[in-house]
Amino acid sequence: MSNTDKIPVGIVGASGYGGVQLVRILLDHPHVELTYLGGESSAGQSYGQVYPHLAHRISLKVESIDLDEIARRCRVVFLGLPNGIACDLAPQLVDRGCKVLDLSADYRFRDLNTYEDWYGKSRSDQEVAAMAVYGLPELNREAIAEANLIGCPGCYPTASLLALLPLLKQGIIIPETAIIDAKSGTSGGGRQAKTNMLLAEAGGSFSAYGVGRHRHTPEIEQICTDLAGHEVRIQFTPHLVPMPRGILSTVYATLRDPGLVREDLLTIYNAFYRNSPWVKVLPSGVYPQTKWALGTNLCYLGVEVDPRTDRVIVLSAIDNLMKGQSGQAVQCMNLMLGLDETIGLPQLAFYP
Amino acid sequence: MSNTDKIPVGIVGASGYGGVQLVRILLDHPHVELTYLGGESSAGQSYGQVYPHLAHRISLKVESIDLDEIARRCRVVFLGLPNGIACDLAPQLVDRGCKVLDLSADYRFRDLNTYEDWYGKSRSDQEVAAMAVYGLPELNREAIAEANLIGCPGCYPTASLLALLPLLKQGIIIPETAIIDAKSGTSGGGRQAKTNMLLAEAGGSFSAYGVGRHRHTPEIEQICTDLAGHEVRIQFTPHLVPMPRGILSTVYATLRDPGLVREDLLTIYNAFYRNSPWVKVLPSGVYPQTKWALGTNLCYLGVEVDPRTDRVIVLSAIDNLMKGQSGQAVQCMNLMLGLDETIGLPQLAFYP
Amino acid sequence: MSNTDKIPVGIVGASGYGGVQLVRILLDHPHVELTYLGGESSAGQSYGQVYPHLAHRISLKVESIDLDEIARRCRVVFLGLPNGIACDLAPQLVDRGCKVLDLSADYRFRDLNTYEDWYGKSRSDQEVAAMAVYGLPELNREAIAEANLIGCPGCYPTASLLALLPLLKQGIIIPETAIIDAKSGTSGGGRQAKTNMLLAEAGGSFSAYGVGRHRHTPEIEQICTDLAGHEVRIQFTPHLVPMPRGILSTVYATLRDPGLVREDLLTIYNAFYRNSPWVKVLPSGVYPQTKWALGTNLCYLGVEVDPRTDRVIVLSAIDNLMKGQSGQAVQCMNLMLGLDETIGLPQLAFYP
Amino acid sequence: MSNTDKIPVGIVGASGYGGVQLVRILLDHPHVELTYLGGESSAGQSYGQVYPHLAHRISLKVESIDLDEIARRCRVVFLGLPNGIACDLAPQLVDRGCKVLDLSADYRFRDLNTYEDWYGKSRSDQEVAAMAVYGLPELNREAIAEANLIGCPGCYPTASLLALLPLLKQGIIIPETAIIDAKSGTSGGGRQAKTNMLLAEAGGSFSAYGVGRHRHTPEIEQICTDLAGHEVRIQFTPHLVPMPRGILSTVYATLRDPGLVREDLLTIYNAFYRNSPWVKVLPSGVYPQTKWALGTNLCYLGVEVDPRTDRVIVLSAIDNLMKGQSGQAVQCMNLMLGLDETIGLPQLAFYP
Repeated sequence: MSNTDKIPVGIVGASGYGGVQLVRILLDHPHVELTYLGGESSAGQSYGQVYPHLAHRISLKVESIDLDEIARRCRVVFLGLPNGIACDLAPQLVDRGCKVLDLSADYRFRDLNTYEDWYGKSRSDQEVAAMAVYGLPELNREAIAEANLIGCPGCYPTASLLALLPLLKQGIIIPETAIIDAKSGTSGGGRQAKTNMLLAEAGGSFSAYGVGRHRHTPEIEQICTDLAGHEVRIQFTPHLVPMPRGILSTVYATLRDPGLVREDLLTIYNAFYRNSPWVKVLPSGVYPQTKWALGTNLCYLGVEVDPRTDRVIVLSAIDNLMKGQSGQAVQCMNLMLGLDETIGLPQLAFYP
Repeated sequence: MSNTDKIPVGIVGASGYGGVQLVRILLDHPHVELTYLGGESSAGQSYGQVYPHLAHRISLKVESIDLDEIARRCRVVFLGLPNGIACDLAPQLVDRGCKVLDLSADYRFRDLNTYEDWYGKSRSDQEVAAMAVYGLPELNREAIAEANLIGCPGCYPTASLLALLPLLKQGIIIPETAIIDAKSGTSGGGRQAKTNMLLAEAGGSFSAYGVGRHRHTPEIEQICTDLAGHEVRIQFTPHLVPMPRGILSTVYATLRDPGLVREDLLTIYNAFYRNSPWVKVLPSGVYPQTKWALGTNLCYLGVEVDPRTDRVIVLSAIDNLMKGQSGQAVQCMNLMLGLDETIGLPQLAFYP
Repeated sequence: MSNTDKIPVGIVGASGYGGVQLVRILLDHPHVELTYLGGESSAGQSYGQVYPHLAHRISLKVESIDLDEIARRCRVVFLGLPNGIACDLAPQLVDRGCKVLDLSADYRFRDLNTYEDWYGKSRSDQEVAAMAVYGLPELNREAIAEANLIGCPGCYPTASLLALLPLLKQGIIIPETAIIDAKSGTSGGGRQAKTNMLLAEAGGSFSAYGVGRHRHTPEIEQICTDLAGHEVRIQFTPHLVPMPRGILSTVYATLRDPGLVREDLLTIYNAFYRNSPWVKVLPSGVYPQTKWALGTNLCYLGVEVDPRTDRVIVLSAIDNLMKGQSGQAVQCMNLMLGLDETIGLPQLAFYP
Repeated sequence: MSNTDKIPVGIVGASGYGGVQLVRILLDHPHVELTYLGGESSAGQSYGQVYPHLAHRISLKVESIDLDEIARRCRVVFLGLPNGIACDLAPQLVDRGCKVLDLSADYRFRDLNTYEDWYGKSRSDQEVAAMAVYGLPELNREAIAEANLIGCPGCYPTASLLALLPLLKQGIIIPETAIIDAKSGTSGGGRQAKTNMLLAEAGGSFSAYGVGRHRHTPEIEQICTDLAGHEVRIQFTPHLVPMPRGILSTVYATLRDPGLVREDLLTIYNAFYRNSPWVKVLPSGVYPQTKWALGTNLCYLGVEVDPRTDRVIVLSAIDNLMKGQSGQAVQCMNLMLGLDETIGLPQLAFYP
């Protein structure tokens, strides 16, 4: 494919962690060409000034945001902006003919009341929101392929839902018993400087935050409710791990049928993810390390049944900035463009 | 108190992490004098060769183990040995008139069948085991003061039980719903070189291990069963955090009475730990960081109720080598010697 | 000593890392009582709100800065403020009869022209600056004991000068050949949130900064020049280590007399620091780890001679916030108050 | 290129860190096919058992070492074995027609006396050693392309020599003044379990080792001596950084001509590395972070002149397992096979 056949794509909000991951992936993607980088805080700088280690591969400047210009230069646009901003831009970009992938929470909710309750911003774009597709390919592969607007899942929901989907779809667990104890590296908090995210503070320490009220809760519940067929409340607790990247979700739930054993579950998981190239179910007795997923778009799942308590415990490891964010967005883009969903995405962590 | 009035104490197994913590604490303890260090692997070396940073404070040598000699020179003996070895030494030391504090699992179980099931070693010292006291002062303060043999709790059980005790004692939760998702720094694995504990492997990564079968499970269950008045099975999952020290236990349980709110629980916790100087219940909405406890004998508790799910979530942070091991052993020793339980133990972390 | 006999001390700038270290040390110091905490950004908050893990030991509030009030309540005042602010406060506090220890750079230079060149602020308090004593007890023990105003050394200069003092005093090296390659944990950058100090950025990475132009250079040169008897330029390069605390300085210099061997140097170092309780010269062939010094006021020195190159290499490890900052300030305070310089300062790291 | 046209390559010593990097790179290399994995300790296991995260991409087993079999199945063989073993295998593989790349020290020295002095093993393969080429493409590009046996450079020498080459080739510095202060993540110590490499020990700490006697010293000196035209002794000090991967070398040397400024040096470096795609000279005033190079085969150089001391300071950052080991070996293989040296090697770190 010659360069002129490549699909032009742009990133609005290119200087954050989501942006720099997208840049890394898209620069090596064989079927697209990065034609636009937008962002207000770094506007006017070359991207190599923002990230000197990339200067040898990219000569684009960060530009201030001009929707007509973006639409003129890009067929696909990624929005890597704070919550509550994409909903002002996405409808206009879709109107101008762009395919839009939003990394923020703005288009993750079918019901904007939920969004308004948890994110505290009122919204008037219910119509646009209704046509947005939740960008979890393992759940919505076909819908994503047809969509013009994707609400890319949060990092914790991605790890947690990939652990839960087979259990919920097959009715194996009592949904209300699900407890998600999730742990994330600190890049999940973004690139803005905050005291509690300093290495001097978070380094060598471990803590929980947002117990019972983290904003990823309703996002997980929305999908669980869909799959269970009745409203489901989930216990979700995020924690901060002293490492830059990676998420491990430890998911507990009570089996509906206490007779099931680990091997039964493994059979179900393997069948469920048979056609999902980015989810790897580990062999019996093997649990994932987050490091195995770093830099890749993979989700590793370890499945355990505790016969003493009749609970299933699923361990789900991803790179929060890849499968948990930018990698998954590119996976969705591939589907939207009719490409194989594995194209252009790393499969091999550089362990250790 | 002149030096000659100080109580002579010894450590068998002085070169591991438990040992070096004991040395640090006991060197600064105003009422004891360290008179003996034993250990086979380092026998003959001065302690300053094993740990050069301590050479300026201690001139003792590590000696090979001679029970008569130990009993002659020590009134109190700490055993910091691998599981299954203390049970060969402790009875003989008690017979010789020593007060013994065992850091291993050998004397944590009233029922040696449980020990044999989980630790795979058969035991013939049921009589001695029956007189041993489980060394959690917040549970067994009086019995510890009278005991000659203490089975010091494991690190995870300490963090987890301090979170659970008020809930179980007051009958606030349904015990069977308790899930303990625990996270530990890697020093919990000891000082023996293992590949998975290398910085190159564990650094920058997070993972679970021993899911549904970690040996600290029956230790937690023994106490929960006692307090609940019926046999209780607990879900316990340990994880490895990329940091040297600290444990956070996240404990979930369903409230028996859904009407309770966070402030109710805080009142109960504060009352329960009113006379426990080493447990600090944090103010409403504050969750502990493991770093707050590092180097101290403190346990910090954060208490939360999720009204959406009717669960209580308790966050418990300790230093795994202090309150989770050697510090707690010294706290027990203080009680056994009729001293204030705070004597000689650090209260202030050197944060950050 | 009853509490009423204790010497009242205060801290201005109590909420930063220097402040919280001072609080930790002074709360456990047997001869002083913490009576005042000042700071503009946290004024009005209790100290336990700023640092929840200390709430059980301190009930003071952070107050806004009122010099008369401070002088009324404190005999000794520590200033933990950004560079360029202490010089507005210290003279007035000294005038009001306080002994003042300034942690900033304001009183480290005899020649304020140097300060103005490197710190970019003009100064009119040359007279006060001239009476200030550079607070490195191993160099200036007697002068510190007589002083009313101490300019506490920077963290890098402390580690580096303790490595260099015996070499310079004895004329063993050619001063101009000295190269100081220093490495620090990130707490050296303070508690202000900066992007490059985020765990997500600095974690798992290593880099140099301020090559050839770090502000600690003239501070080191001032002392080297004094000791050499002629103007000396030093090569100093700081680096950022992915850890919260600790400094290692690797100091290289060419021997004036190539015949000297490691044991000669060790003899000289041991003699030089014979009466310095906070400097520990390690045995032949042992090099320090920064972890050995964490939480203590100790400096560990490892001394090496390379007979292939006729250079001496000295490795100097400290805790940057203790001997490198607040611990050393308390050591100076002890001397100023006629106390033993070891009083109230930790000697035992909680390794590992 | 169809799979059958791909060049068959094998790895002896596949289960260590060098091996797993090679596997990662070679699996994604478009022109080679991995046909053999050898190793004694893991023989009989599938590679996916050794490294479960790779099981989805590789079905090879680790086999015990059979030279005829290797030669039958591989045109290129990488040896990732401890020092002193490759020299028993390499000559036989070369005889059987394989191109051999040895990651150990065995073929890095032209003069085997030096090897024997520093590595303590006597050698009788001087003839083979003489035909081996030191695998630093930026120095020996043409010779590598013609070679059948490559002695791949050590990690520290790679980082350090890339910093020094332009200075030595152009005669800009006085070679004897060169001081290399190098810092490495702990994976440089390999995957064998050692106490000092445990996260609990090395985590949160920083230290030097092998001062004045690290085995990479003669390797650096051999090249410096060649380029200087007279025997040169180099000061080299390695340090351990609490991170899994990455090396930063800080190289100091005195300018022969004090008039040179930073921009002069940058011009020289840029010209020197004009045709070296894996070395990136950073813009004026920018210093490299090791994280920029992680997972890539790049070396980033920051160049500084200190006009106060007439020294040049060069900062060189690489991934110790990529450009410092396996990546560079593949770069050499590319040259040996007549391929572009950038083929199959990652260029973009997954920062942060």
